[in-house]
Amino acid sequence: MKPINISEKFKLFNEHWTPKKIGELNGQQLLLAKLKGEFIWHTHENEDELFHIIKGRLIIEFRDKIVELNEGEIVIIPKGVEHKPIAKEEVHVLLFEPLAIKHTGNVINNLTVETFENI
Amino acid sequence: MKPINISEKFKLFNEHWTPKKIGELNGQQLLLAKLKGEFIWHTHENEDELFHIIKGRLIIEFRDKIVELNEGEIVIIPKGVEHKPIAKEEVHVLLFEPLAIKHTGNVINNLTVETFENI
Repeated sequence: MKPINISEKFKLFNEHWTPKKIGELNGQQLLLAKLKGEFIWHTHENEDELFHIIKGRLIIEFRDKIVELNEGEIVIIPKGVEHKPIAKEEVHVLLFEPLAIKHTGNVINNLTVETFENI
Repeated sequence: MKPINISEKFKLFNEHWTPKKIGELNGQQLLLAKLKGEFIWHTHENEDELFHIIKGRLIIEFRDKIVELNEGEIVIIPKGVEHKPIAKEEVHVLLFEPLAIKHTGNVINNLTVETFENI
């Protein structure tokens, strides 16, 4: 039950698209990620995914629309919905999702991280 | 998949200790609450609970220690751990917990809200 300071945790890593785990509750995990550039189109078949923007501006492309998210905004992406995050400048996000989700969803490629490091 | 703007949502209500629901995913819910004053000692027998401080300073008393949380800090309270939140000045928090949790946990009293209003 130690306080988790989000901005201090963000100082502990610099990689992009490599979520780090900062907590776990009720079978869910709390991840931090730094995003920059374009991610891949992917879908999480069984998990809804939450993005909470801590810093910067994130674009999420869906097949039928584009959503822009700014600091202090949250979006929940329902399972099965294909999406592609794009960060023109570096974005800091807090992610909330079930344990053991793959961040690249249905796509396994060189961006896929099998286990998220705890920080 | 509309962006949820946290500070805009906080403008929609003024009551204290009355969580409002802003989203739902994977059997969990995302709540906003304004806290001021002292809450009651309570325990959630089966649910871990997450507090994310959006504004202000929250004290959480446990039976064996006191934790102080400031803006941008998170604490996860494991199920079964008795706690008492105290907000000397108004605090804005984001809560993350399973659907249908009672915010007063094992204690049902005049502070208990049976169903959280969607905002």
